[in-house]
Amino acid sequence: MKNEKILLGHGSGGKLSHTLIQEVFVKYFSNTILDNQTDAAVLDIDSKSISLTTDSFVVDPVFFPGGNIGKLAVCGTVNDIAVSGAKPLYLSSAFIIEEGFPVEDLTEIVKAMAEEAKKAGVKIVTGDTKVVDKGKCDKIFINTTGVGTIDESRKHIGSGSKIEPGDKIIINGNIGDHGMAIMSARNDLKISAPIVSDCACLHNLIASALNVSDSVKFIRDATRGGLATVVSELVSTKKFGINIDEDKVPVLDSVRGMCELLGFDPFYVANEGKFVMVVGKDDAEKVLAELKKNEFGKNAAIIGEVVAEHPGKSIVKTGIGGTRILDMLSGEQLPRIC
Amino acid sequence: MKNEKILLGHGSGGKLSHTLIQEVFVKYFSNTILDNQTDAAVLDIDSKSISLTTDSFVVDPVFFPGGNIGKLAVCGTVNDIAVSGAKPLYLSSAFIIEEGFPVEDLTEIVKAMAEEAKKAGVKIVTGDTKVVDKGKCDKIFINTTGVGTIDESRKHIGSGSKIEPGDKIIINGNIGDHGMAIMSARNDLKISAPIVSDCACLHNLIASALNVSDSVKFIRDATRGGLATVVSELVSTKKFGINIDEDKVPVLDSVRGMCELLGFDPFYVANEGKFVMVVGKDDAEKVLAELKKNEFGKNAAIIGEVVAEHPGKSIVKTGIGGTRILDMLSGEQLPRIC
Repeated sequence: MKNEKILLGHGSGGKLSHTLIQEVFVKYFSNTILDNQTDAAVLDIDSKSISLTTDSFVVDPVFFPGGNIGKLAVCGTVNDIAVSGAKPLYLSSAFIIEEGFPVEDLTEIVKAMAEEAKKAGVKIVTGDTKVVDKGKCDKIFINTTGVGTIDESRKHIGSGSKIEPGDKIIINGNIGDHGMAIMSARNDLKISAPIVSDCACLHNLIASALNVSDSVKFIRDATRGGLATVVSELVSTKKFGINIDEDKVPVLDSVRGMCELLGFDPFYVANEGKFVMVVGKDDAEKVLAELKKNEFGKNAAIIGEVVAEHPGKSIVKTGIGGTRILDMLSGEQLPRIC
Repeated sequence: MKNEKILLGHGSGGKLSHTLIQEVFVKYFSNTILDNQTDAAVLDIDSKSISLTTDSFVVDPVFFPGGNIGKLAVCGTVNDIAVSGAKPLYLSSAFIIEEGFPVEDLTEIVKAMAEEAKKAGVKIVTGDTKVVDKGKCDKIFINTTGVGTIDESRKHIGSGSKIEPGDKIIINGNIGDHGMAIMSARNDLKISAPIVSDCACLHNLIASALNVSDSVKFIRDATRGGLATVVSELVSTKKFGINIDEDKVPVLDSVRGMCELLGFDPFYVANEGKFVMVVGKDDAEKVLAELKKNEFGKNAAIIGEVVAEHPGKSIVKTGIGGTRILDMLSGEQLPRIC
């Protein structure tokens, strides 16, 4: 099928669908559960609670420095499971493909998914393929839905119900890379040092933090809407406030430069390999040291703290000594960033 | 939001997204798990095995006689779980919406999903919303991924591993309704008696059959590719054959007429409320009687049997005394049927 293009018949459920499924999806995703090729995958679960999350990926362009829509679809959902405090185990993957999309590009995307799933130790166990007429979708959209198992003792991590004043806010590295990588790829900007997306699966990094401390109280990946949206969402209905020290938030010079040039605030730019973590103050340095050992946490930093003052609000102390209130993103900054 | 249109900002992850989620999705889908509004839903599972299935829905038109894309997205996934022998419990729902899509139409779709989920006893527990620029998708695409629990004793139903010669083939009613309903809605065909899609959740019907018999050996919903594709897929790698008696297969006169007019074979036309069930011969009549008690099974019929002859092939005895071999659908018959 290498040099072929996707036809409407590849989504028919008939012969062409079977060929596509065998020669592209099953070939790379192969595992004992998927290979049964029943519509519903039967999964053995060693827990009384599971964590379920879904995301559709519509990123444009499909290929970008640091990844492609397939890698993103695996990492994004693995991370959503991991930040809930759960262990990611299984993924479904559903494709909506535009008629005429090159099978070669699809194969590259599927290979990236398979590779990333293997690295993450998750299995892609069931899927779906739809094809729509040319012009009725833009190249390819992928939905991944993830299943993980979660321990009773970690159920509070998703909601942050145990957060209290004094807790520290940690970010696992520099912000804004993904958004600016997409922006430069989309507009084919010629920049001397290309910005690379931070797209990565963070479950091992998260597991290492949970291993060294029982006082990790909240984790959320800072994707659409960026760091600012995670922090302002977190405080919005709570009885505490958050202070962020702008100077402590790591931003690459290249990303900062591009943001200034194009009028973006890095706090609002999407990431695909960054999370905000709230840790009890006594354990914060220990967790930070642990994160820094990992390639996806080497630039981690404590960037602020939870305070009893100004409940419901997050305030940034700016580099020049002023303050500003962080709010959720209004309007749209960068459509189709993920 | 009633008379508004979807903006790119509704997919930003920021303020507009929050408004949309609150005023449309949470308003209708509301349940204790979803209302937590964490990215990953935590689900209590009372089983050691779960069944996981995913489907993206791209049906065109979005509204059709007998349903809309939302009802279809719930029923389709509930049915995929149910035909695996599992009990459907939870759904995720992920929306890809075209900029400019009327919020009123979205609300109608979401209401249909909520209503169908309530009837089916399943909870929609997590979701995702993406918005793409006008012209980059066609109105709205919905992915639903379903989770159910499955008993050890029913794990063979998805693959049909216990099927043997002599078993009977049952269909739960007339075929081709969904495909022809979409076809007439899409082309705005003026026909005296409009054909209505059979789109329905079949899990209760399936549960009733499983209740009266331990020898239900296989169930598969006959969606894309129709009855013919299910039957030919089932035998394709097996050591048995299947004989189907064409005269026994129920087809509405209106559907048959439209198929003849447009050159379709009802055996290949998509259904959204029909399954093929294989039942041990001693229990077939009992199961049939049970199915007939239900509104979605009242036209059920025994349409054929599993035979030791011609392994790997399914043969139809035609009304005029001839025979033909059923094969999987080649090419595409009706794109975007689901």
